[in-house]
Order: sequence, then C-alpha cells, then structure tokens
Amino acid sequence: MRCFILLTALLFPSLAVAAAAMPSPAEIVDAAPATAWRNVAPEQLLIMKLADGDRVVIELASDFAPVHVANVVRLARSHQWDGGAITRVQDNYVVQWRVHDEASPLPEGFVAHPPAEYERPLKGLDYTPLPYPDPYAAESGIASGWLVGREGAQIWPAQCYGVVGVGRDMPPDTGDGRELYVVNAEAPRQLDRNLAVVGRVLQGMEHLSALPRGTGKLGFYTDPHQNVPIASMTLAADLPSGERPVFQVMRIESRSFSRYLAARAARQDPFFVRPAHGVALCNVPIPAREKTADHS
Amino acid sequence: MRCFILLTALLFPSLAVAAAAMPSPAEIVDAAPATAWRNVAPEQLLIMKLADGDRVVIELASDFAPVHVANVVRLARSHQWDGGAITRVQDNYVVQWRVHDEASPLPEGFVAHPPAEYERPLKGLDYTPLPYPDPYAAESGIASGWLVGREGAQIWPAQCYGVVGVGRDMPPDTGDGRELYVVNAEAPRQLDRNLAVVGRVLQGMEHLSALPRGTGKLGFYTDPHQNVPIASMTLAADLPSGERPVFQVMRIESRSFSRYLAARAARQDPFFVRPAHGVALCNVPIPAREKTADHS
Repeated sequence: MRCFILLTALLFPSLAVAAAAMPSPAEIVDAAPATAWRNVAPEQLLIMKLADGDRVVIELASDFAPVHVANVVRLARSHQWDGGAITRVQDNYVVQWRVHDEASPLPEGFVAHPPAEYERPLKGLDYTPLPYPDPYAAESGIASGWLVGREGAQIWPAQCYGVVGVGRDMPPDTGDGRELYVVNAEAPRQLDRNLAVVGRVLQGMEHLSALPRGTGKLGFYTDPHQNVPIASMTLAADLPSGERPVFQVMRIESRSFSRYLAARAARQDPFFVRPAHGVALCNVPIPAREKTADHS
Repeated sequence: MRCFILLTALLFPSLAVAAAAMPSPAEIVDAAPATAWRNVAPEQLLIMKLADGDRVVIELASDFAPVHVANVVRLARSHQWDGGAITRVQDNYVVQWRVHDEASPLPEGFVAHPPAEYERPLKGLDYTPLPYPDPYAAESGIASGWLVGREGAQIWPAQCYGVVGVGRDMPPDTGDGRELYVVNAEAPRQLDRNLAVVGRVLQGMEHLSALPRGTGKLGFYTDPHQNVPIASMTLAADLPSGERPVFQVMRIESRSFSRYLAARAARQDPFFVRPAHGVALCNVPIPAREKTADHS
C-alpha cells in the first residue's frame, strides 16, 4: 500500500494504516523474524567504496562462477580496484567499471582465461521452482538463494536489476574479471547464459543507478574527468572484525519468504484493485538487509 | 554486438565490423528507412522542461486513458506544471512529480474524478500479439504501437521502463493527473491495470533516471531543497511551428520492426553465444527518434 500516496495519505496516515488488512511485500519483510534470515559469509561479501565515500555491498556468486569470482577477489586483495573507475553508464542497461590499470601485473593465481561459467548443473544446489511462465527459460526458480533460469539439468543466474557480471569481448574470449558491470534497469535477460555473473548488490545500488549517463557510444563517458573513481573493493573477511558489516538475505525456506513471494505475485494490500496473479523472475528480488543491533 | 567492448574493440573497430554478420537491434533501427517511421502528432507530444534546461519528451497515451490525458494537457495549457517539482525518486521503481500548487483552481473542463481508465477493449485498435509467455497477462502484444497485456477482449498498457502514469491514493479514488510518475527500472508490472497510463518517454529519460534517490519513505525527498524543479510541460502543438520538435516511432507493420523484434528475441549478432529465443514484453521498447534533417 501507499505506493503512490498523495498528500492526503501523508496527512492522515491513520486512515491508511486502518485499511491495511493484508500486508505489502515490504511490510512482510519488515516483520520477518530473525529466524527468517541467514548471514552472508564474510568471504562472500565484497565492499566497494567509491572515492566520495559511498558504499556498495555485493554478495559474490561463488556457486555460479567460482573462477571469475576468485579472480575478482584476487584483484581486490592485490588492490587493483583501488583507483579504478566507473567508465560507462548506459541508460536502461548497465553501469561498468574497471581496475586501476589493466597493464598491471596479474596477481598470483589469477586465471587469465577463465572458462565460460555462464551456466551450471542444477545438481548440488537447493532449488525451488517458480510457477510463473518465463519468456527466457523453460522454468525459472531460486537456487541457493539466487534467481535462476533452468533448462533441463542446467541452471543459470538471471541478469536482473543489481546483478553484477563480467564484461568481455567477443566470443569465444571471456572476460577475466577486470571489468565488471551491474544491471541498472529493466533486466536485459538476453544476456542470460552469455556472460558470467559474479554477484549481486545487497546495499548501495542507488549510488550506481543514479550516476549520470554517459553520452558516448554504449554509454561510455567521453571525458576521463567524468569517470567515477573507486577507492577500493575489499572482501569483508579481510576487514578487521570491528569494521566488518554483517549482511543477511532472507531464507527461501522461511514462511516469511513464502508470504513475500505470494504477495509479490498477487498484491492484496489495499492500494491494489486487481492483483496480477503472476510475477516476473526479476521482480522477486531476494530480500537483504544489513544486520544491526535491532536484529539480534 | 559490442555490448561490453573492452579496449581492444575500441582500438580495432575494424575487427568488430568485419565480424558483424548479423545486425544488432540497434543496428536494425539505425538502418531503418524513412518509410519505417511515423510521425507522432504534435497534439500527442508533451515537452517537459526541467528548470536546469533538460528536456524530456513524452508521447501521450490518448487511446488508453483519454480523460486523464486531457486533464494533463489542461494542466499544461493553464501552466500548472510551471514551477512544479519532482518530489520522489524511489530506486528501482518510479520518479514522481506534481504540479506547482495543488490548491490552485482547476482549469476549465478538468475532470476532478476521472474514471478508472486502467484497461480498454481491444476493439478499435490495431493489434499484434507477441508469441512469448508473459507472467502478467494471458497474452502480450502491441496495440496501436503500445506494449500491452491482453485478457479476453480487454487490453492495457504494460508498466514498462519509461511509461508515465498517474499517481493516486487508495481505491476507489483515482488520481486526477496532478501527480505523475515514470517507471525508472525493472518494470513493476504488478501496477498493470491498477493505475492509468498517460504516456511514455520518447527522449530524455536519462534526465529522470539519473536523479538522486530520495532517502525518505517510498523514495520521497526529505528536504524541499532536494526537489527537482520543473520549468514547464507544453504540448508540442502549442509551440510555434519553428520550435516544435518532430518525433517518430517505428511502424509496427514495417519490415524493420519485424527484424528488430526478431533480433530482440534471439540475438544473432557476434557478441552472443546463446540467443534466448524469447523476450519479455518490456524488453521490446518501441524504437523512437527525433526527426532531423538527416531523416528526410
């Protein structure tokens, strides 16, 4: 409810609250008990700091593109993201950034030509199918907490809003992880199974999505002064424990998630006159939050 | 192709061109002949000027919400948008703006309580179904050049990226057009058939999508100084002919559009290793352009 409140709703919030017979997805998330959440391991949490101090928190997709993810982490540990820059913001598509210097020596263990980790076997992951049709996959679902498409025994992470992937050149070359992108609008799912997904933004997406669009071809900034400087990318596990943020994502098996999904697919809160009875895969973002003292 | 070009592609563009056996959707649009385009009538073109000079061009959806559209136009002609403001930017949802003063007398002919123009009969409009499944509709398609869902004999405009709708309070009240919103990311199609659609952005969406996100509830700006002032909204037909921009949208019945749609659903350009063979309705934005001397 109150998706498009006018002034009256601001003046008379009691009226809106009184009408709230069924909760909205956001209200279900806010009311979820501590048991509905799981901590993201600090080894799977990458903290991107922009030079202006803004923070973007990324959960790594180690189940889906482990070699690419390991490359990104090696670049973080060897500080190659420090002084990097966002160089491309294409409206309704992606924001893209790169390491400080692509001529720098590669860190030890870096895989210069990773395999095309665009899909993987379903086997070995918890999987919950979604009952709604998906124009990009035989079936869509949630695997190990990630939104995925499925075809036969193979699954792949869907290129949804906030998903972080690895830029690459023409096939069969694949990117090595020194250029990353994040989806900034309508999910460009034509990219599914064409690029490696290494993560998703859990917090701070607004620092990337609100950046000025580049006016060059494909949204590249035309003047280096337009580039948005990156201070660092750091694995949470590499921070002193006192500085290490804790992030949580909602457990798919929780009752809260079932209710959230049901509400996403059929809005029953008072604002809605006609529920859709269906939902697109990328319109079911997995709830995430920073764990604070209030959440203990 | 060149969706995620690295430096090599910039240095050796000839290699990329040589490999371009099949065109990308953008290349198909760029190569479309003059006959593939139709002019948007100046009575259906609303020019929003932000106070900083940025321009957003909106095509009105008179076939879908004529009473709401007429209200918006009456507000424009009585200058009630002049001095209005963008007051809300919610990440991955909507940008919302309002008239200068909601206490101003309503213009003559203004309909204070418009009907709920959320859907309409298919009858009377050219309609082309799309063959891909849609989680929000029995069928999706294109009606009079607009992306729509269909159920039985009724259709409605889909709430895609760049679609402009009318903010409202709780049902059964509907908005009157003095607060508008535009979708700024993943299509919130749970709003389909719940709000009146009055237009779509043909040019300048980046001036709205890149605005700072509001930090208040629902993305409202918390300080009036954050509001983004609007200079005016003017119907193109009301401008002197010399200042009147001409916009074109691609004809759905053109061969160029057929090729564009096919390429959107199955990318065959060299960047792609695996075409999707399907596409979401909102991922087929109807091509639009400003007509210039080059296009005659």
